Amino acid sequence: MSEQFDFITLGETMVRLSPPGFQRIAQTQSFDFQIGGAESNTAINLAWLGFKTAWLSRMPDNALGRKVVSLIASHGVDTRGVRFVPGERVGVYFIELATPPRPNRVIYDRAGSAASRMATADVDFDRIAQARWLHMTGITPALSESCRAMTADVFRFARARGLTISFDVNYRSLLWSAQEAGCALEPLMSLCHYVFVAHRDAVALFGAPEAPRQAAEVLRRRFGCGVLVMTLGEAGAIAQTESQQIEVSQSFKVSQVVDRIGAGDAFDAGFMAAQRWGLSLEASLHYGNAMSALKLTIPGDLALFSKDDVDQLVGGATRASVR
Amino acid sequence: MSEQFDFITLGETMVRLSPPGFQRIAQTQSFDFQIGGAESNTAINLAWLGFKTAWLSRMPDNALGRKVVSLIASHGVDTRGVRFVPGERVGVYFIELATPPRPNRVIYDRAGSAASRMATADVDFDRIAQARWLHMTGITPALSESCRAMTADVFRFARARGLTISFDVNYRSLLWSAQEAGCALEPLMSLCHYVFVAHRDAVALFGAPEAPRQAAEVLRRRFGCGVLVMTLGEAGAIAQTESQQIEVSQSFKVSQVVDRIGAGDAFDAGFMAAQRWGLSLEASLHYGNAMSALKLTIPGDLALFSKDDVDQLVGGATRASVR
Amino acid sequence: MSEQFDFITLGETMVRLSPPGFQRIAQTQSFDFQIGGAESNTAINLAWLGFKTAWLSRMPDNALGRKVVSLIASHGVDTRGVRFVPGERVGVYFIELATPPRPNRVIYDRAGSAASRMATADVDFDRIAQARWLHMTGITPALSESCRAMTADVFRFARARGLTISFDVNYRSLLWSAQEAGCALEPLMSLCHYVFVAHRDAVALFGAPEAPRQAAEVLRRRFGCGVLVMTLGEAGAIAQTESQQIEVSQSFKVSQVVDRIGAGDAFDAGFMAAQRWGLSLEASLHYGNAMSALKLTIPGDLALFSKDDVDQLVGGATRASVR
Amino acid sequence: MSEQFDFITLGETMVRLSPPGFQRIAQTQSFDFQIGGAESNTAINLAWLGFKTAWLSRMPDNALGRKVVSLIASHGVDTRGVRFVPGERVGVYFIELATPPRPNRVIYDRAGSAASRMATADVDFDRIAQARWLHMTGITPALSESCRAMTADVFRFARARGLTISFDVNYRSLLWSAQEAGCALEPLMSLCHYVFVAHRDAVALFGAPEAPRQAAEVLRRRFGCGVLVMTLGEAGAIAQTESQQIEVSQSFKVSQVVDRIGAGDAFDAGFMAAQRWGLSLEASLHYGNAMSALKLTIPGDLALFSKDDVDQLVGGATRASVR
Amino acid sequence: MSEQFDFITLGETMVRLSPPGFQRIAQTQSFDFQIGGAESNTAINLAWLGFKTAWLSRMPDNALGRKVVSLIASHGVDTRGVRFVPGERVGVYFIELATPPRPNRVIYDRAGSAASRMATADVDFDRIAQARWLHMTGITPALSESCRAMTADVFRFARARGLTISFDVNYRSLLWSAQEAGCALEPLMSLCHYVFVAHRDAVALFGAPEAPRQAAEVLRRRFGCGVLVMTLGEAGAIAQTESQQIEVSQSFKVSQVVDRIGAGDAFDAGFMAAQRWGLSLEASLHYGNAMSALKLTIPGDLALFSKDDVDQLVGGATRASVR
Amino acid sequence: MSEQFDFITLGETMVRLSPPGFQRIAQTQSFDFQIGGAESNTAINLAWLGFKTAWLSRMPDNALGRKVVSLIASHGVDTRGVRFVPGERVGVYFIELATPPRPNRVIYDRAGSAASRMATADVDFDRIAQARWLHMTGITPALSESCRAMTADVFRFARARGLTISFDVNYRSLLWSAQEAGCALEPLMSLCHYVFVAHRDAVALFGAPEAPRQAAEVLRRRFGCGVLVMTLGEAGAIAQTESQQIEVSQSFKVSQVVDRIGAGDAFDAGFMAAQRWGLSLEASLHYGNAMSALKLTIPGDLALFSKDDVDQLVGGATRASVR
Repeated sequence: MSEQFDFITLGETMVRLSPPGFQRIAQTQSFDFQIGGAESNTAINLAWLGFKTAWLSRMPDNALGRKVVSLIASHGVDTRGVRFVPGERVGVYFIELATPPRPNRVIYDRAGSAASRMATADVDFDRIAQARWLHMTGITPALSESCRAMTADVFRFARARGLTISFDVNYRSLLWSAQEAGCALEPLMSLCHYVFVAHRDAVALFGAPEAPRQAAEVLRRRFGCGVLVMTLGEAGAIAQTESQQIEVSQSFKVSQVVDRIGAGDAFDAGFMAAQRWGLSLEASLHYGNAMSALKLTIPGDLALFSKDDVDQLVGGATRASVR
Repeated sequence: MSEQFDFITLGETMVRLSPPGFQRIAQTQSFDFQIGGAESNTAINLAWLGFKTAWLSRMPDNALGRKVVSLIASHGVDTRGVRFVPGERVGVYFIELATPPRPNRVIYDRAGSAASRMATADVDFDRIAQARWLHMTGITPALSESCRAMTADVFRFARARGLTISFDVNYRSLLWSAQEAGCALEPLMSLCHYVFVAHRDAVALFGAPEAPRQAAEVLRRRFGCGVLVMTLGEAGAIAQTESQQIEVSQSFKVSQVVDRIGAGDAFDAGFMAAQRWGLSLEASLHYGNAMSALKLTIPGDLALFSKDDVDQLVGGATRASVR
Repeated sequence: MSEQFDFITLGETMVRLSPPGFQRIAQTQSFDFQIGGAESNTAINLAWLGFKTAWLSRMPDNALGRKVVSLIASHGVDTRGVRFVPGERVGVYFIELATPPRPNRVIYDRAGSAASRMATADVDFDRIAQARWLHMTGITPALSESCRAMTADVFRFARARGLTISFDVNYRSLLWSAQEAGCALEPLMSLCHYVFVAHRDAVALFGAPEAPRQAAEVLRRRFGCGVLVMTLGEAGAIAQTESQQIEVSQSFKVSQVVDRIGAGDAFDAGFMAAQRWGLSLEASLHYGNAMSALKLTIPGDLALFSKDDVDQLVGGATRASVR
Repeated sequence: MSEQFDFITLGETMVRLSPPGFQRIAQTQSFDFQIGGAESNTAINLAWLGFKTAWLSRMPDNALGRKVVSLIASHGVDTRGVRFVPGERVGVYFIELATPPRPNRVIYDRAGSAASRMATADVDFDRIAQARWLHMTGITPALSESCRAMTADVFRFARARGLTISFDVNYRSLLWSAQEAGCALEPLMSLCHYVFVAHRDAVALFGAPEAPRQAAEVLRRRFGCGVLVMTLGEAGAIAQTESQQIEVSQSFKVSQVVDRIGAGDAFDAGFMAAQRWGLSLEASLHYGNAMSALKLTIPGDLALFSKDDVDQLVGGATRASVR
Repeated sequence: MSEQFDFITLGETMVRLSPPGFQRIAQTQSFDFQIGGAESNTAINLAWLGFKTAWLSRMPDNALGRKVVSLIASHGVDTRGVRFVPGERVGVYFIELATPPRPNRVIYDRAGSAASRMATADVDFDRIAQARWLHMTGITPALSESCRAMTADVFRFARARGLTISFDVNYRSLLWSAQEAGCALEPLMSLCHYVFVAHRDAVALFGAPEAPRQAAEVLRRRFGCGVLVMTLGEAGAIAQTESQQIEVSQSFKVSQVVDRIGAGDAFDAGFMAAQRWGLSLEASLHYGNAMSALKLTIPGDLALFSKDDVDQLVGGATRASVR
Repeated sequence: MSEQFDFITLGETMVRLSPPGFQRIAQTQSFDFQIGGAESNTAINLAWLGFKTAWLSRMPDNALGRKVVSLIASHGVDTRGVRFVPGERVGVYFIELATPPRPNRVIYDRAGSAASRMATADVDFDRIAQARWLHMTGITPALSESCRAMTADVFRFARARGLTISFDVNYRSLLWSAQEAGCALEPLMSLCHYVFVAHRDAVALFGAPEAPRQAAEVLRRRFGCGVLVMTLGEAGAIAQTESQQIEVSQSFKVSQVVDRIGAGDAFDAGFMAAQRWGLSLEASLHYGNAMSALKLTIPGDLALFSKDDVDQLVGGATRASVR
């Protein structure tokens, strides 16, 4: 009877400011504006892939907060569940985009943001009830005590309503310690149908073995989640279920990285979409890889690619047409 | 024996981010970067006019804090007295530059900045002791309790060391109420050789009469300061001493305002410079007006004009050479 | 029971490409991208003023058509009634923005656009039925025969469903002759509660008297519409009803025009909003003037101003704060 | 007695609009302006290499049409034979420049352009008579029936006047089917001294063998043209005459492609120039490869390189001077 | 029999570099590139007005010199008479574009430029012989001794061949003193059919009376030239012949100056064009004024306006269409 | 007692103007502004690494000269010893930044610059006396006779005062011949503690053997300098002392070069810093390589990296974090 969302996500979205043209902050006279938040990125990526998606958050009721939300909405994501509050601030991060061997450098200025003060009372549970799949990441419980409690409440509610639940561990060392993160996140894992975790985070937070394939198996069993997806950077990814383990390598080479940010969220979206389309785990890993590779070729956090774009890549249809 | 500064100022400097081309924040994809702080603006303006100046503050030890300070230093201002602290944030303000009848709109994001946590212990009193003239504004005591106490301590020290002291009331309604400001600032006034105050602030904070000339006279007597300079916006300015009152109108017309911010700081610098050069009060008001008008023709908070530039304008040497 | 829109509009929206920095087309190496369409402009302006609005059209299903629609949606306008068609083109116009005495120059490249091929069968009548007020302009019936027939059908339907109907004559001499336009539009006028017409168009299309006040009276009687709003450029505007005539002058001076396009649509939105808020005709003309003036200060066709922004201007609250 | 052109070309040139910085169309707020047309590209490239060249076309007499032609003329190409017509449109294409694995995406908006309506009556045959070498491509006959007839007429005239004739098959699947193209183009081939064809087009249009070397031999014999140059993308190119076959690989590696468009036209120009200088087929292939590689390192469709630039590369003189 | 030019001009053209957005040089991170030279400006302006024009100079044979010349050629000016020399430099000027009361500031870096070393032997007299009207300015003889001698030779040749000769005094105080200029230029005046001189230069160089009308009369008689056109800045201009004096005021108001440079050259072109069209002196002054006003509304030194553009303005057809 | 500088350098700094986005000069409408000078680059690089540095030169007292110096000062380099002179010019170079196989192209316009007229009388010997280490390059003696004499005088003075002396041969073929350079520079070598020389320059100027290791040994012995550092481009570098030879390869791979200029100066700074920190020759070569690699990833001549940035790279801490 009511509207159905294929996916709903919840989290903080920040203003992202970066010097143009690979400049250092010390050099620039202007900053390119983008928006960035793991959960809204994923919601937008899934909207581009053809799904009905919604995103929930708590944002300041000023020109910046409104701008962030209207940009998310412009990609077709339902943002009517966002709670606007007066007199607060939006989180900001300044990032130097770099090419190897220079690393990206970030100055986070997110303390005390409106989103970090989100609590259970801010959540639009009606919208969650309208969705089939909930996706969250480990950034949200890291923001504050109230966010941690809220995450647990949202998980409980989603589980009770029968939603598919996915979670990306997404460890941020500036927000909390690996130990703190490991302790806080582990109890949530058993509620998840899908857990995404980078291998290095698996080792740091949960003491997983150094050998990736072993780590995936051990960790899935320990978490008791449905599918554990372990990403291995440029080496590819592993999908681990109770009964099988599938590993694929990253087959899409990117010679010239335009912007590295958001590749993980693009991977998640590609994998989740493929699962929702009913594809195999192996195919889903390929869609994750393809989305991740495509993301690297455009500026910003977002993977603005349609199903056709990704199908074409996964189908091997893209032959470089240099001449 | 030690180095002498003609002027020293102390206060907060923020990162200023503004959409290019008179866009609203809702429209922009990038922000122009500038720096802005009443006290550093004045120090820079005076350095351009040929003086040795220094600026004191407390700034975060990250790429943004370092960038702000190195930009100030690039104009020849001595910044070696700035205290850098790790793990804090720089204040930011987002401003929509507008042309009438649209007003400039500002989103301040300055709460908890490193500068707002400045206290007496952060002040490089040795540098103050090397200067002849101290300039501060009413923004600094508005930032926090510790800043208020520090302002008083700096004034006491400067007075004791025999520095000339100037103060611009510079009321910011977003930081404190008019009443709070009036109460906090009035005790400082008697220590000042020069007080700059906009007429509308004189009325709002100190209940001065609506008639500007009367307001100037009443307020100077009440404050007991040496010279009270009352600015009247586009109408000009008044200089009031114990014995005389001088009013000049703004004779430099600006048909096309490029950027309105910083015109008040430019006025202060022009007036202070002229006083330091030994000019009359009337001439000093003209230099204030000229600097203020010139400022409006360039982007940013700063009035990057040499003594020659201003002399030429005050001397009436600039005839529009359209063809 | 179903969702209600305060306003719904219907028409063509084009890609607008203009050289930056007042360049001529002959000079530029890039074009700024904006969107422009009288009806979507008005819908967006009204959304910014706080209303629920929707916009209907027919657009090509490619990256440009999708971009235009998602930009409109990003301002909160409901665009789900837009019909996307494959294999067609979006209308484009190249415009040289100029300052007097140089006029703006336009190259229209809109022939055969997807929107110009719109017909009654493309209209989402369900959405119209959900709205309280329909707004259209004289551009739509000028696009093609099928658009002309569709306009009449939409008017009939809206009238039957009891919607308030407003219409801006918006004569475009490149699309049809004054005579053709006069003949085609006059039959629609009697169905309108509000007709907006520039005085020069009133003279050219309908042979109205040269004296504006007389023209307004004569024309409203002849049309039999509720209110006729006659705009007089910088001289102001007249609202004419059966029983009264109200004239206001343009009291908001714009010294520096950033972008002239869209001022008429901004006027309409301001006037319509004020009527919807229950204000008097005189107050509504002032809101029209205020929106129009504000529009001139930002780039693009759109008047991105909230009710607060406009209230502040109409309330005389904006005093230039040069210093 | 009259002026002599080394080369003359004839075809459509379009306005090319592309988002800067590898953005997708969905992201951009501006479009970079370039011009693009296989035949004018080649004429410009040859002018840079030191030849007297001319270009013929039919263009709208408006600011865009004039801009396109004056840009071509600015490179020294004679454009006085272009026919300007009022009231028509210039073709436009919007292109997303991408890096692998993302493919370039194009939205063509060229239907009904002034150039596509070109017919034999529009051709300045006097100028053709002044030239020694005519170059055309398979795009022109694909534009319309009148263009197809005109192409045949121009070939007949050039052959009768004794000009060298070269032709690049340049198949565009959006304009016609491979079968249609094959049928239309084959009769022209026997009139050509040089035919350029990509191996994949040779297979698709003319059913050539999959083995490149065999394809080149078979096709040249079938066409009966003087030299058939078959390009193999990054693998190099083959020159096939009645008596010999020469294959060279692409020896100039481009690590970072700035803009892929126009590399084929650059190849043609390099090859044609070398032939005109009297160099061997092998050397000519190397010049084609060098021009093609250089083109990839600058933005736009054009290969703006002098004979010295290319000589230096072909002579192996360019050693990366990183430090 | 040979090609005829309506106008030919001869002089230096420099690279013009200016900070964007009214920045001072101290602020900018980039410079906008334009070309500027009084004589090529006038040739280009006249080409836009529909005339066949040519320009002669001496330029370095490097990428900058070639760029300058190809930009001039792109406007349809014949540049085949330019002499390219290896190993020399192009003149450069850095200019801060300002709005009143701030004056434009220029740093000239033109000493030793290729053009300043021009001598009689560099001149393409064949091309001059093909023209009907020669235009030069007082900048050329100011560049060097050889340029001074060359100017006299060119005048003699043009006079002998029966060309119309016009000359704009165009005094540049950075190149020579008023006295030096007066002495050098006066002998040339009697050869001229038209002399353009700003009133302030008339006073400074030739001791003309302060009263403009008197100055015009006195000076024309003294020079013995055909028509003396005295420009009065925003006040208008006077045309003085042996028998009549015509004064017109500048009737085209420019509220917002985009770029002041080149307005004088635009005036000259407008006046010369009108004379060539056979219009009266009064009408010619109006065309001069119109071109000058239009120039102020676009960036760069050039007045890129067609006869239609100017006719429309002179005909009063441009009514500001704000809404 | 007086202030101590860790390093002092002396030389010319030019304005560097480059087309953005890998454009050729023929294409661009603007130039990015940077500063470039081997000695100021090194001083700035060392300041970023944490050292107290000073730079000496002779510069024009205009907006460009002041801008260059204030930019150098903004990085913390002491520039108070720079001598400003009126009425002269700053050197300029226009550079096309390219990616392989296209080479960077430079147009130098440096003849007669203020710096090239520097002589012993312009040198602030007091500041040199305050420093511990003097660094110069082979560009300075190449500028003029007076610069050559000055270089020798500065070396003598530094040697007498006991400063460490380093010298980078930095051969510029446009300024002098290899033979001239070899003869002029060789006598200076024996005064140096460190000589940096590219292997190809060692061969060209000093007839060193083609085998790098042999060349390093032969040359150091012949020069009699302390350490000879021979750079081998992407192959690495060799440090040669009387008793040992150390070779390291370039272990930091740069896949995407943003700007090649300044990599040599970055190498020198990295090596010199490491020596000053007391590290081994091998470690110093690694720091040179790291600084050089980092430099390639940012625009401009400067290596704006802190000790932490470089330590992290040398320590292998930078793992590409693509996802």
